[in-house]
Amino acid sequence: MIYADHAATTALSPKARDAMQPFLEDAYGNPSTLYSLAREPRRAVLHSREIIAAAIHANPNEVYFTSGGTEADNWAIKGTAFRYSMGKEIITDAIEHHAVLNSCAALSRIGYKTTILPVDSNGIVSSDSIKTAISQNTAIASIMLANNEIGTIEPIQVLTDIAHQAGAIFHTDAVQAIGHIPVNVNELQVDMLSASAHKFNGPKGVGFLYVRSGIALLPLLDGGGQEHGMRGGTENVAGIVGMATALQEHIEHIERDAAYLQNLSSRLITQLKQHELDFLINGSNQRIPGSLSLSFKGADGEMLLHRLDLMGTAIATGSACNSKETELSHVIQAIQVPQKYANGTIRITFGIDNTVEDADTIAEQIARILYR
Amino acid sequence: MIYADHAATTALSPKARDAMQPFLEDAYGNPSTLYSLAREPRRAVLHSREIIAAAIHANPNEVYFTSGGTEADNWAIKGTAFRYSMGKEIITDAIEHHAVLNSCAALSRIGYKTTILPVDSNGIVSSDSIKTAISQNTAIASIMLANNEIGTIEPIQVLTDIAHQAGAIFHTDAVQAIGHIPVNVNELQVDMLSASAHKFNGPKGVGFLYVRSGIALLPLLDGGGQEHGMRGGTENVAGIVGMATALQEHIEHIERDAAYLQNLSSRLITQLKQHELDFLINGSNQRIPGSLSLSFKGADGEMLLHRLDLMGTAIATGSACNSKETELSHVIQAIQVPQKYANGTIRITFGIDNTVEDADTIAEQIARILYR
Repeated sequence: MIYADHAATTALSPKARDAMQPFLEDAYGNPSTLYSLAREPRRAVLHSREIIAAAIHANPNEVYFTSGGTEADNWAIKGTAFRYSMGKEIITDAIEHHAVLNSCAALSRIGYKTTILPVDSNGIVSSDSIKTAISQNTAIASIMLANNEIGTIEPIQVLTDIAHQAGAIFHTDAVQAIGHIPVNVNELQVDMLSASAHKFNGPKGVGFLYVRSGIALLPLLDGGGQEHGMRGGTENVAGIVGMATALQEHIEHIERDAAYLQNLSSRLITQLKQHELDFLINGSNQRIPGSLSLSFKGADGEMLLHRLDLMGTAIATGSACNSKETELSHVIQAIQVPQKYANGTIRITFGIDNTVEDADTIAEQIARILYR
Repeated sequence: MIYADHAATTALSPKARDAMQPFLEDAYGNPSTLYSLAREPRRAVLHSREIIAAAIHANPNEVYFTSGGTEADNWAIKGTAFRYSMGKEIITDAIEHHAVLNSCAALSRIGYKTTILPVDSNGIVSSDSIKTAISQNTAIASIMLANNEIGTIEPIQVLTDIAHQAGAIFHTDAVQAIGHIPVNVNELQVDMLSASAHKFNGPKGVGFLYVRSGIALLPLLDGGGQEHGMRGGTENVAGIVGMATALQEHIEHIERDAAYLQNLSSRLITQLKQHELDFLINGSNQRIPGSLSLSFKGADGEMLLHRLDLMGTAIATGSACNSKETELSHVIQAIQVPQKYANGTIRITFGIDNTVEDADTIAEQIARILYR
């Protein structure tokens, strides 16, 4: 089997699994308790926070554990909006993940003003469009670091700058970026950043929100005193440890892996061209390594997915986390892929477990399906 | 080591751990994807939903997976309140978990009216007090099924009835009850019910919210189409499977275990009395089996905790999930434990891994500490 849907989820790294094991066995104590049984899990949570902070050049007290990217996105946006009376404005863009778009829509329904910025044909949010939309009434701008469907990396530094000049808080959904491209919260100058462990070979059900020190944010999950009183709930110790281990592993090899994945993408493109297939490569040239959104002329993306599945290859069509939708994805619509190509869109996202042979096989399989 | 703090957290059951294993290894597919790799995790989530629904006599489509009890409590309360304009009323009581109390406080800060009902000296919410407080303006009443500190089981059926007569929705935090006492959502007539896996030997970081069919609730975590579009985020497949396995295991032996735990509690009380210690047993006679809140005259609960820890016994003082707090817990304050006893409060919560010898040892250890 060839798994080429790493943007949807990834296999748990054996190293992360090993690191989690003690916390699924003897070290089960609740980190918030006072007795000695709590020491090991408490230290593990602390150490994981340090690892994650270091990976994004933050301080450990700026890292808050969540149940994943969706919670982190909801928290950042709603936890900022609720600080203000309704009527305050939220800015986002048309190709965000549904966790961001639907958080904004929920706020919009109860009276907040939401502006959804357009993107160009490469999926880029322009500095002009954010400049026009932003005002002193803007509470928060939420623009993703990298898109989950077309891999486009947004010019975050430029956008953050504009947001800050208007006095707005800037949040970025980095779920698809963390572990795959270098992320430095100080260079990006973002105020908040969301991440999800299962996108970088960590376990499902855990993620984090970076919140720059000094940024006022209301809790989304009110409760006990966990996470400096900012996020209630007994810590998912095993999950947190698995996430930190997997992220550290990714960071150690990030450049080597990026080059390797870039090569797999190029190889696939070359092979598809040799098969003389008519297709478009979606997204900008600045993309997540190994991430390809391709639109084949006159083809049907869902048919391609199922035929490839029968041939033993797992890829996606539409968006990452909800590939059940059969209508054209909001991202493909927003970047205005020409009609003759749009329906034939598939997403192939390689991981380091993929090989050059995998790329060749996928190209052959697609050619076989489309030439039939 | 004697672990007698099962209300804080429990060890993961080996059966649950085994059931989780495949989903931490080969069956890592994202359940929301279309290809065959997703089939096994998707079926596992489906099957887990059926197991959990059966355990509480609900339908599978009434069970929504969350990251734990705190998220479930926040979701039930905020997801109901946000359906209404501010000015709507929320009713709860003085001995709820902080996830409920702080959710209500957060809503109160933005304009919702919150009424906190008192409890009697056993921790019981009286039907008279809810009758007086409730009105057609009440959106939701949230009263726990069993208290996490003193184990008191509330007369939910009576309270639900009163809430429904006033047209209010009734939510119960059953985090401490599920798996330990029989729970039937139809007998209780609750509209929503929260649970957390790690309180019944499931993994940390996963729980569920039961929402009766027909009850209108807004999502708290907006995002992808997961959980019938009600709770975004890639499913924590391993966690969900672990939770269902652990709950099924508990349900199978619930009566036998309750009798066993009841016996351990009685044994401890008898032994403490034989040591001629002066103490009060907090909570009503209708308590979670194996759960004991004891207040020793003139003693210091925190000192007792640390001394017992040095002797190899883990127990709690104050509330379950945040035992770091050194001030008198809100529960002990609300049930008005006499001043001479209140500071000497500890919580001992047995699990089926405890033995009669453990109960005897704990009694001896407490006697040794207090007679010194």
